[in-house]
Amino acid sequence: MVFFSSISCRFPLCKMPNQNAVKAFFYHRIPILQWAPHYNSKKLLSDCIAGFTVGLTVMPQALAYATLAGLEPQYGLYSAFIGCFVYTIFGSIKDITIGPTALMALMTYQQIIGRNTDYAILLCFLSGIVQLAMAILHLGVLVDFISIPVTVGFTSATSVIIGTSQFGSLLGLKMSSNGFFDTMSKLVQNIHLTQFTDLGLGVGCIVALLLLRKLKDLKCHKKGSRPTKSQQSINYTLWLISTSRNAIVVIICSTMAYLYETQGGGSPFRLTGNVKSGLPEFKVPPFSTVLNNSTKTFPDMLNDLGSSVFLVPIIAVLGNVAIAKAFASGEIIDATQELFTLSLCNILGSFFSSMPVTGSFSRSAVNHASGVQTALGGIITGSMVILALSFLTPYFAYIPKASLGAVIVCAVIFMIEYEVVKPMWRSSKKDLLSAFATFICCLVIGVEYGILVGVAINIIFLLYPSARPGVHVEKCSTPNGMEYILITPGNALYFPAVDFIKTSIARAGVSSKNLPVVIDCQFILGADFTAAKGIAALINEFSSRKQPLYFLNARLEVVSVFQGVLSDDFVNFNCKTKLESTIEEGNNR
Amino acid sequence: MVFFSSISCRFPLCKMPNQNAVKAFFYHRIPILQWAPHYNSKKLLSDCIAGFTVGLTVMPQALAYATLAGLEPQYGLYSAFIGCFVYTIFGSIKDITIGPTALMALMTYQQIIGRNTDYAILLCFLSGIVQLAMAILHLGVLVDFISIPVTVGFTSATSVIIGTSQFGSLLGLKMSSNGFFDTMSKLVQNIHLTQFTDLGLGVGCIVALLLLRKLKDLKCHKKGSRPTKSQQSINYTLWLISTSRNAIVVIICSTMAYLYETQGGGSPFRLTGNVKSGLPEFKVPPFSTVLNNSTKTFPDMLNDLGSSVFLVPIIAVLGNVAIAKAFASGEIIDATQELFTLSLCNILGSFFSSMPVTGSFSRSAVNHASGVQTALGGIITGSMVILALSFLTPYFAYIPKASLGAVIVCAVIFMIEYEVVKPMWRSSKKDLLSAFATFICCLVIGVEYGILVGVAINIIFLLYPSARPGVHVEKCSTPNGMEYILITPGNALYFPAVDFIKTSIARAGVSSKNLPVVIDCQFILGADFTAAKGIAALINEFSSRKQPLYFLNARLEVVSVFQGVLSDDFVNFNCKTKLESTIEEGNNR
Repeated sequence: MVFFSSISCRFPLCKMPNQNAVKAFFYHRIPILQWAPHYNSKKLLSDCIAGFTVGLTVMPQALAYATLAGLEPQYGLYSAFIGCFVYTIFGSIKDITIGPTALMALMTYQQIIGRNTDYAILLCFLSGIVQLAMAILHLGVLVDFISIPVTVGFTSATSVIIGTSQFGSLLGLKMSSNGFFDTMSKLVQNIHLTQFTDLGLGVGCIVALLLLRKLKDLKCHKKGSRPTKSQQSINYTLWLISTSRNAIVVIICSTMAYLYETQGGGSPFRLTGNVKSGLPEFKVPPFSTVLNNSTKTFPDMLNDLGSSVFLVPIIAVLGNVAIAKAFASGEIIDATQELFTLSLCNILGSFFSSMPVTGSFSRSAVNHASGVQTALGGIITGSMVILALSFLTPYFAYIPKASLGAVIVCAVIFMIEYEVVKPMWRSSKKDLLSAFATFICCLVIGVEYGILVGVAINIIFLLYPSARPGVHVEKCSTPNGMEYILITPGNALYFPAVDFIKTSIARAGVSSKNLPVVIDCQFILGADFTAAKGIAALINEFSSRKQPLYFLNARLEVVSVFQGVLSDDFVNFNCKTKLESTIEEGNNR
Repeated sequence: MVFFSSISCRFPLCKMPNQNAVKAFFYHRIPILQWAPHYNSKKLLSDCIAGFTVGLTVMPQALAYATLAGLEPQYGLYSAFIGCFVYTIFGSIKDITIGPTALMALMTYQQIIGRNTDYAILLCFLSGIVQLAMAILHLGVLVDFISIPVTVGFTSATSVIIGTSQFGSLLGLKMSSNGFFDTMSKLVQNIHLTQFTDLGLGVGCIVALLLLRKLKDLKCHKKGSRPTKSQQSINYTLWLISTSRNAIVVIICSTMAYLYETQGGGSPFRLTGNVKSGLPEFKVPPFSTVLNNSTKTFPDMLNDLGSSVFLVPIIAVLGNVAIAKAFASGEIIDATQELFTLSLCNILGSFFSSMPVTGSFSRSAVNHASGVQTALGGIITGSMVILALSFLTPYFAYIPKASLGAVIVCAVIFMIEYEVVKPMWRSSKKDLLSAFATFICCLVIGVEYGILVGVAINIIFLLYPSARPGVHVEKCSTPNGMEYILITPGNALYFPAVDFIKTSIARAGVSSKNLPVVIDCQFILGADFTAAKGIAALINEFSSRKQPLYFLNARLEVVSVFQGVLSDDFVNFNCKTKLESTIEEGNNR
């Protein structure tokens, strides 16, 4: 058996001459320096079109997500521009658009229910600080501990919770609720108060949005043939209408409501109501607040926010990295850079009364599909939000709540990932268990705890093989007929497995009636002090029985850990015995 | 390369015919059934001698540990007999003696400080219940997650805390303290109140105990020569005196105090004081208590006890299993049986006002050295404690506190495991870090949290290789000169490593300028859904670049996980390509 040489040529990757190290650092950390010098008017046109389209999408979404978070609608818009500007400078993936998302809104809602807006803004600031700390400590590795099954379970549960939370708006009910079951029970209690005008409008909007969504798949040329120029422009128009569907539906509904209100003596729909005009004040985030006539200090607020101070930023990064991966088209994602950018978006945003923000999957997809060329598209989107805050807010008041509800429902129903169940069943049933456990726990005990439970289950599955690795026992004989027991422990030899492996070897040794025992260490990639103590005890035990014990294929690093504990008169791992050589030869035949 | 056949003959171990399954179960779970039929008078004599010697040891220890736990001295004796009886019936290792220990006393003290005895008894009951649940759920595996470095750090810190906690008694100070730093600061504050009579007695006792401890190493015959019969009996007497040193020192000191008190007009030493006479009442453990004039319900008490409800039983099991391993002389320890027995000792004990108990290392060592033959020795020890409670308590009142403090100090100083530092440094420096972190945290933030921090650090070290495994990249060529890139990921392919391995492979693929890439999966012992998705993405990426990608030595179980996600037109893992066969042949040369 030719064992793997541990000396080899690694590819010299990403090596940069030392004199350019500082320049390289800035190029790496401020990606605008990379693309700005090559910017041209053609790219500008593409970026403007994409930025404008994303702007049309973000406005109704921002209003809706602010309501979802339990905040006044203008806070959605406050959260929607800083991220765009920051990402233009520091973002590494051109397609990503930072701003309010349904998930962040839901997690914010769970923290501010019964409290006030200050908590949302402080949470935004603290999320940024935690992300900055994670970036500095290179803790991007934490994101790797959230597996696809947990992500799937979490996203699906969140979508269900967000979707059902909009049923109130769609039925025209005035109710506030917390979590899936609370919403469902309140819905059942209040179902007799349903406003049929709102219900009609809501259902109408959903149907319209779903149909408009399908519109972009419609092509006016035959499949396989090249479209003519006029066909191309019809296709493009269809795509543009489909992409701007949220804005179109909201504008039409608002116009209806406006006409009813100004001419028909009152709208039959529940409306968004006053949206505060003007840009948010630039001020330090609130480190104390007055709640129920008593002052809450910073430690009080921190205590109230609890674990969400860590979970919100981690989940924000997870979402952002996931989107980055989806749009990176094979490029390597630098999790630290994304953490750093996101932390800036949140810290700066909190000075503009933003709630926690992260990359939005739906808007990034629109950005990508609109043909964005550089991160400059963000500047256009951000500017549109600022213009809207300055001039459009009087009109936002006429947006019916039901149509905003419809926008949210149509965004989240495609995030319920039922189609992943089948491949997961085929591939790994254990993972299906993690996914379902996460899904159920998110619904029952809340999204933050749900994801923690999911990660814990995953880590237990991950640790179990370290505690109970496979130990393969086989009776073999050398070519010259000498019998021996070959034991191959799978996995590394770290403390949780030591007793198990030691017991297995001891047992095989005893039941073999003093045949020589050969331990094939080829899968033992590492060991620790507990393992070394165990091996020492094993060697002692075998030598007291005068039963030969050999170690085959042991790696240098493992041997050095073992030898730290063994005294010198024990087996010398480095010199091969005759039996070992014979076995190695035998295996190579 | 001959790959390991996954079909092999496992040794048929511990297989029992089905008809005897019930009988075997009872034999296994009630070990007295195994040894009682072969019991004889010779064994009885040995067991009586050993049981009596252990009885002499347990009495001063029990009084001292009760004081250490902040309880009245009789509670130590209440905790010292039930465990002995239960272990005789259900225990699987003849040497183990169950009862109060310094560690359990310290952990109990941290729970009852500022509270009352009811908390200690409830903690005993709940520890038993948790251990029973662990036994039923086969959670003995949890014990494996406490590594030797963490145990060493924990035991050493506990010894330091317990040792210093006795300085008060040794100096004759009246003080109660909590934790290492609190004790030290109170000692410094009160040092001027030192009672020199107590100090003199304490130091005298320590010197006497250490000298008597050495006595058993003294042999009156020449080394190497066979001792004569009279020499043998002198040796045995020396050993007996050495072993009974605690009882001897305590009896001498108490006699001195008694004489002072009855004839000299008052003892110059602080005495233990009244020890309640008689056996404890048999009653249901207290599920509510009155504390500071307010009634605490069961949930209140549970809340007060907090995480110790889980930590005390787990640490008790850990201690017990560690002792079992030390005395099992190569036999296999059944952690479930030990859990089950320990749970019975604690549950039954709590009905007799016991504090939490576990196996005592010092008394088990005495038991072993006294030549115990079966677990029956426990009956003798337990009966002696009952006799003492019935008749000796009036005399216990005269035991000086300083001599009990000396007994504890001399027991714990040998538990500070400084000698393990050197081999740990040689073997694995990472483990030294865990040990020191555990030691420091136990001293600074308390023993329960210290052990949790230690386990957490250990698990992080354990998980890190799963997130960042070694990926070995090598440029190779087949015997006929065809170049390829050989990539060997170490460790299993589970979710935390997926992105890292995928990125490494993608990077190597890109920088190799479209050479075929061969992934040697020999160390990939398992995979999950996240891995399968990653591999699918990798295959997509390579096929879009038209770069060949092969998987070598992939195990069947890994392939089946991958194939659950891959659609059928992707690489078929099972049919060998020409390149693969060539590489395999090449490797075998």
